[in-house]
Amino acid sequence: MTAMPVQAAPYSPADDFSSADGELLINGLKVSRVAAMAGRTPFYAYDRSRIEARVGLLRSLLPAGVQLHYAMKANPMQALVGFMAQRVDGLDVASSGELRVALDAGMAPSRISFAGPGKRADELRQALAAGVLLNVESAREVELLASLSEESGWPARVAVRINPDFEMRASGMRMGGGAKPFGVDAEAVPALLRRIGGLGLAFEGFHLYAGSQNLNAESLIDMQRRSFDLMLRLADEAPAMPKILNLGGGFGIPYFRNDHPLALEPVCEALACIVEEVSTKLPGAELVLELGRYLVGEAGVYICRVIDCKVSRGQKFVVVDGGMHHHLAAAGLFGQVVRRNYPVVVANRIGAPSNGQVNVVGPLCTPLDVLADKVDLTEVHPGDLIAVFQSGAYGFSSSPTAFLGHPEPAQLLV
Amino acid sequence: MTAMPVQAAPYSPADDFSSADGELLINGLKVSRVAAMAGRTPFYAYDRSRIEARVGLLRSLLPAGVQLHYAMKANPMQALVGFMAQRVDGLDVASSGELRVALDAGMAPSRISFAGPGKRADELRQALAAGVLLNVESAREVELLASLSEESGWPARVAVRINPDFEMRASGMRMGGGAKPFGVDAEAVPALLRRIGGLGLAFEGFHLYAGSQNLNAESLIDMQRRSFDLMLRLADEAPAMPKILNLGGGFGIPYFRNDHPLALEPVCEALACIVEEVSTKLPGAELVLELGRYLVGEAGVYICRVIDCKVSRGQKFVVVDGGMHHHLAAAGLFGQVVRRNYPVVVANRIGAPSNGQVNVVGPLCTPLDVLADKVDLTEVHPGDLIAVFQSGAYGFSSSPTAFLGHPEPAQLLV
Repeated sequence: MTAMPVQAAPYSPADDFSSADGELLINGLKVSRVAAMAGRTPFYAYDRSRIEARVGLLRSLLPAGVQLHYAMKANPMQALVGFMAQRVDGLDVASSGELRVALDAGMAPSRISFAGPGKRADELRQALAAGVLLNVESAREVELLASLSEESGWPARVAVRINPDFEMRASGMRMGGGAKPFGVDAEAVPALLRRIGGLGLAFEGFHLYAGSQNLNAESLIDMQRRSFDLMLRLADEAPAMPKILNLGGGFGIPYFRNDHPLALEPVCEALACIVEEVSTKLPGAELVLELGRYLVGEAGVYICRVIDCKVSRGQKFVVVDGGMHHHLAAAGLFGQVVRRNYPVVVANRIGAPSNGQVNVVGPLCTPLDVLADKVDLTEVHPGDLIAVFQSGAYGFSSSPTAFLGHPEPAQLLV
Repeated sequence: MTAMPVQAAPYSPADDFSSADGELLINGLKVSRVAAMAGRTPFYAYDRSRIEARVGLLRSLLPAGVQLHYAMKANPMQALVGFMAQRVDGLDVASSGELRVALDAGMAPSRISFAGPGKRADELRQALAAGVLLNVESAREVELLASLSEESGWPARVAVRINPDFEMRASGMRMGGGAKPFGVDAEAVPALLRRIGGLGLAFEGFHLYAGSQNLNAESLIDMQRRSFDLMLRLADEAPAMPKILNLGGGFGIPYFRNDHPLALEPVCEALACIVEEVSTKLPGAELVLELGRYLVGEAGVYICRVIDCKVSRGQKFVVVDGGMHHHLAAAGLFGQVVRRNYPVVVANRIGAPSNGQVNVVGPLCTPLDVLADKVDLTEVHPGDLIAVFQSGAYGFSSSPTAFLGHPEPAQLLV
């Protein structure tokens, strides 16, 4: 058995995965064996070695002193968060549910931060009890937090999430700039900082998340620079020296034909300049990068089994036991404007010649249940395994798994 | 307390809901009381009286002899299916999970049918054990079914799902015509019928589902006529006289401004002609209508609570404790090409004057989490309840409720 690169027809990043005897390897294990370990199809498999390699790459390029956080929203699977908790410097949570997973994973509360535009009172109380950092996002939240803190006697640790006065170019999704529900408009931050001081809350820093899924290094560099400059300006008005400057994330991964991987080196080099400035202008403060998709997205594959191969009026349909109910994004329904195919291969026929175009569809009675539209695949038969790459982030957790009453997919950290 | 019609700003069908003391009434109960009964927000509430009225309306207009089925995929909540099972003539299921709910609801297996383009062997076996009708959708399925039936000794009851040689105009989603994964191309049906006869399976009829969410009566009438004519033609080739002619559904409900409710009378009148023809041309056969959304969609509301009201750069944001994770369709992410607002009101301030435009957004850290974009609402404050109408179908069950780790919404049959 010799490892050879996978020829993932429509998309090159899948070439990173190796194969043996025509089978896709997931952390060295053949896909048919992983399927047997899962005990059923469909399943998501997350490759530990690929996560490890991604964290290692970042550690090797990031300037010393930059804290690497994992944004759990990308993939909150408990085992994966536990694996990650031993490798990153902090976890970012977006709900009290995620907070519980982060704490169970053994991350120190001092290294957990909680952001979200609509935190409920019970969530704020849980966060106070746990002692995590709250990225506050409105005046109401600050007042509520102060009263909950007084009532409980648990001190509130706060950072202010800023809605910047600029936008991030080339971003898949913008979460800052203009009118937004996220954070506090930059121009309203000084007044809020005074209020935080007046209420005696422990001010720890700033958070700014301008956008996500960005493949353009220049745009990321520009965003980080502007974010830092804005924080520097606002620090003058803060009730205490900031200790945490969370620049957000937004590092994208390539999904589609013609997408190019992010050039990491220039982004890290530009960060080194900011680190330098921090040491002179805001000594004692730490820069934080908060990455989700970039850490886990490329480490995951979604595997389903072929149930039927049909021809309808000249088109071939490969009907599989998974689909949009398990992987909404691959079906093109997770905010995409135009549906494009995620990279897909027949995972047990790697290296076989192309056998022409097929449609890979799921078992649901809806035309929305499409995993790949007019894609070139090798020969394929019932029982074969189909792999959807780039599925480690915003897959399982962002899909309507109960839709039409089919079983949930399994999840494995391999 | 006097009932008065709700002035649901952007959308008239919500006028059907009454109010008292400024509160939306759900089957006669004030929304604040229903919220207290739910024990939490957000929740879905399905109004028994509205479901009952819709079934009654159909019964009063449908010609005698037309069987009314409920397509569970629209809303598989166990209690609702149980309520429905006592009021309709059959249930249509789309998975073995839905099959279990249908059986638990007490529907006789003889009145349950199972369709789906990719039925797994274990699902077919469950269906055989239960004795329900299988709408077969491929040659492979017929062979597999025959061997499972022989193996188990349980007879297979089959109807053939036809992929027609026409398309339904004006349909929200097309599921027949052209190249499709659903059913068997009309031109391939005769050969399949011969094979069914040869295998000795009990042939019971035909199923044809051309499309869904159609508000155009003329198009539905045309589709039903063509479907019946096709079945009549194919019946000549069948191994037995068909007993069941399932014409599908596709009856739409109005969601958006400028949508007009379906004119039910002409559709039912046209069905009367078909019933007449059935009695002479295919005596003993029953016409079946399979409706999901049309039976329950307008009976349901999604209720969430306002957490925060923010202004960002001149725009007002009403942040609620529910959103896209509970109601993907209202967020515009369930196959819609252009995002449009579902009808939304402040459910505890019915009749209050408009207070200008706001954006109603959820608690998630994503710009996709929008329930209403630039909608006119009355005055609104934290603690108020927001109602999203037309939420009885494809709401809870088709949403990624685990996304970002927030609690699931409750569901109540009121």
